[in-house]
Amino acid sequence: MPNLHRVLILGGGFAGLVAAQTLKRADVEITLLDKRNFHLFQPLLYQVATGSLSPAEIAAPIRAVLSRQKNVEVLLGEAVDIDPDKKNIILDDGGVFPYDTLIIATGSQTSYYGNDQWRENAPSLKSIEEATRMRHKLLYAFERAERADTEAEERAWLTFVIVGAGATGLELAGALAEIAHHTLKRDFRRIRPQEARIILMEGGPRVLAPYPEDLSAKAEKLVKRLGVEIMLGAFVTNIDADGVSYKHGETSGTVPARTVFWAGGVTTTPFGRKVAERLNAQTDRSGRFKVDPDLALPNRPEIFVLGDLACTSDAKGNPLPGVAQVAIQGGRYAANLIKARLAGRTLPPFKYFDKGDMAVIGRAAAVADVFGVHVSGFIAWCIWLFIHLIYIVEFQSRIIVLIQWGFLYLTFSRTARLITGELSSDTPVPQSRSKAS
Amino acid sequence: MPNLHRVLILGGGFAGLVAAQTLKRADVEITLLDKRNFHLFQPLLYQVATGSLSPAEIAAPIRAVLSRQKNVEVLLGEAVDIDPDKKNIILDDGGVFPYDTLIIATGSQTSYYGNDQWRENAPSLKSIEEATRMRHKLLYAFERAERADTEAEERAWLTFVIVGAGATGLELAGALAEIAHHTLKRDFRRIRPQEARIILMEGGPRVLAPYPEDLSAKAEKLVKRLGVEIMLGAFVTNIDADGVSYKHGETSGTVPARTVFWAGGVTTTPFGRKVAERLNAQTDRSGRFKVDPDLALPNRPEIFVLGDLACTSDAKGNPLPGVAQVAIQGGRYAANLIKARLAGRTLPPFKYFDKGDMAVIGRAAAVADVFGVHVSGFIAWCIWLFIHLIYIVEFQSRIIVLIQWGFLYLTFSRTARLITGELSSDTPVPQSRSKAS
Repeated sequence: MPNLHRVLILGGGFAGLVAAQTLKRADVEITLLDKRNFHLFQPLLYQVATGSLSPAEIAAPIRAVLSRQKNVEVLLGEAVDIDPDKKNIILDDGGVFPYDTLIIATGSQTSYYGNDQWRENAPSLKSIEEATRMRHKLLYAFERAERADTEAEERAWLTFVIVGAGATGLELAGALAEIAHHTLKRDFRRIRPQEARIILMEGGPRVLAPYPEDLSAKAEKLVKRLGVEIMLGAFVTNIDADGVSYKHGETSGTVPARTVFWAGGVTTTPFGRKVAERLNAQTDRSGRFKVDPDLALPNRPEIFVLGDLACTSDAKGNPLPGVAQVAIQGGRYAANLIKARLAGRTLPPFKYFDKGDMAVIGRAAAVADVFGVHVSGFIAWCIWLFIHLIYIVEFQSRIIVLIQWGFLYLTFSRTARLITGELSSDTPVPQSRSKAS
Repeated sequence: MPNLHRVLILGGGFAGLVAAQTLKRADVEITLLDKRNFHLFQPLLYQVATGSLSPAEIAAPIRAVLSRQKNVEVLLGEAVDIDPDKKNIILDDGGVFPYDTLIIATGSQTSYYGNDQWRENAPSLKSIEEATRMRHKLLYAFERAERADTEAEERAWLTFVIVGAGATGLELAGALAEIAHHTLKRDFRRIRPQEARIILMEGGPRVLAPYPEDLSAKAEKLVKRLGVEIMLGAFVTNIDADGVSYKHGETSGTVPARTVFWAGGVTTTPFGRKVAERLNAQTDRSGRFKVDPDLALPNRPEIFVLGDLACTSDAKGNPLPGVAQVAIQGGRYAANLIKARLAGRTLPPFKYFDKGDMAVIGRAAAVADVFGVHVSGFIAWCIWLFIHLIYIVEFQSRIIVLIQWGFLYLTFSRTARLITGELSSDTPVPQSRSKAS
């Protein structure tokens, strides 16, 4: 048997997984390396954070997804360095993996815009662990409010601030409003969860900035109807255990809040920076790699960078957003180009097929831009539901998720309301409340 | 309004929850205090550890279960001390809760028989966190085996030892055998998961010691058929990162294994010890409280001890096992006695109604002693399935679990196969494996 062409894929997210699957019948030897053993359906992560879904319902073991594809080997491990001349990837444990073609699709991480100290009090939503930590934090806040000593303390525990009004921020705010105003309505004896304040803070002039303006306006109306307060043009200047400080034009203020979630921007990972340094590659402001029209690096046709780590452009030169569709189409394109090259052919440049964009705001409420048609409300929500169900990788998860959602829709109940794991240092230990009467 | 009789319930397990529910229409003021916000359906915890169910599917928020019962207040907090003269319970944060009647149902913890250093390498199965840690450990073992450098290392990663052949040990062994021999069959390229060794080690002369002998024999046969090796009369002398050492009569040996699970005995908690000390109460060898025939403490009729923390006896004076049925019936009895006392009456002593006992061994295999009738195999499994579904607290969970099990039965797949959370120190970081060919 001749030595097969070795394709090394870093990352089992949308781009990496689709690339591997597209190479199914190709005469190559694929290794897919990921530091986690599962593919995560990131668009539904906020539903784990808000107790509607369990982690396993939005994750599928990469191994299981690819178990019948004989030309791929799945390994657990974390890439930390690259040797582009020897064409090797180096793992954190010193392991060395050679490649003929390399696909880098390791994704991005949350950016606190240089204020990493905020992370402790304002978790973000990138991993299963962060989602369960968020769930812990928000459920715990109601428990603490119920046992608060003073009214001010109770208020602070019942105030939730979400920083960033992109799709994730809106989804979180909408879900939180539902939890407070419906799910927990009857569960407490002292506090009234309905009175919880949910504040969506955004530095820009409108919510869902990358969307068309009419959809931004619709989204704002829908989320306000759920009882969410929106603060636009408010720049966060500090976040600590007591709350959020902001500047709004000439004025500045502080919102006392014990629970803050970060739905801000993304940036490159340490591995991404290392690769850029080794290859002397051009990156944009967020550290994303500038790629050629064929998604490979300039002068490095054997290295593709896909998904959130790449700064891909559409036909007009506008950068594409970091969403699943861009990653999926990029993964498919790169795999097809590898196949074409092995057959001595080439392909026209990558062309993004924009199916649109959508954000869900709450129960039966969403906004969508589908092939240029703007939809909002219940219909947009149905489209959102349908598309997300279709894409969830494993057949079983899809059905379970559908049933969960059916119940949630009918009952407002949330089944995954568990406070698990260790309390992190930022969550104060409950204080005393003497009940002697 | 006159001061209502205050019932303080410590622990939202089977005993505490049923006691609260039984007091539904009573003219009392109930406070249910638990350090977790959820009731855990402990009998199915092994299914979380082995990736069949998600944590949320076997847990229900205590608040949600009791939300419509107006005379109960649910609080999150951990009791650490008691002042029996002032009739107060003291929390870890200094909070003080008074009671007129106290129900202590805080449960037990795992006992390593004085070898707590074994815990690090041999986790047990008492909490959600331990179950997900077990799941992490066992799935990770296969990943590491796939990347092993030497055959001996691969062998050690593919050897699983379960210490203790009670119901939990058998359930774990059976599920593990199914994972190795069916679920993961196609998922790896180098190792053959089917060749994994699963060893059930037991100090006593037979599995399921508290069961009738014929059922022990049946269970042994069923679990052997799944490919589990059983070592009876083997006393564990040491557990470390490399494996398990044991003594078997005059001989002794060591099984090199990277994954060891502890399914041994239980003992009292620090809070249980503190209460016993304060009350000068009599306890048995495992620290369980000796209670009067009415489940209250001798000379302390206002303090009930229920569930795993109590040493309850049947009519013949034989101690009752630490199972859900004993806790449920005890909770119901104590609540009814409180109601009777408030009405100036009393009740005959607690009488345990023994419905039988059962353990599940694997796919369509179980043993059961139902009202003295001994059943095994598929029928026992159906009975087990039925009973467990009935008892799962929340309606929704019940349906989801049924569907999950249906899929699992038909497909051998397991949906909750996630390796999440931080690796603990006992799990070595993957070592290098150069793939250069």
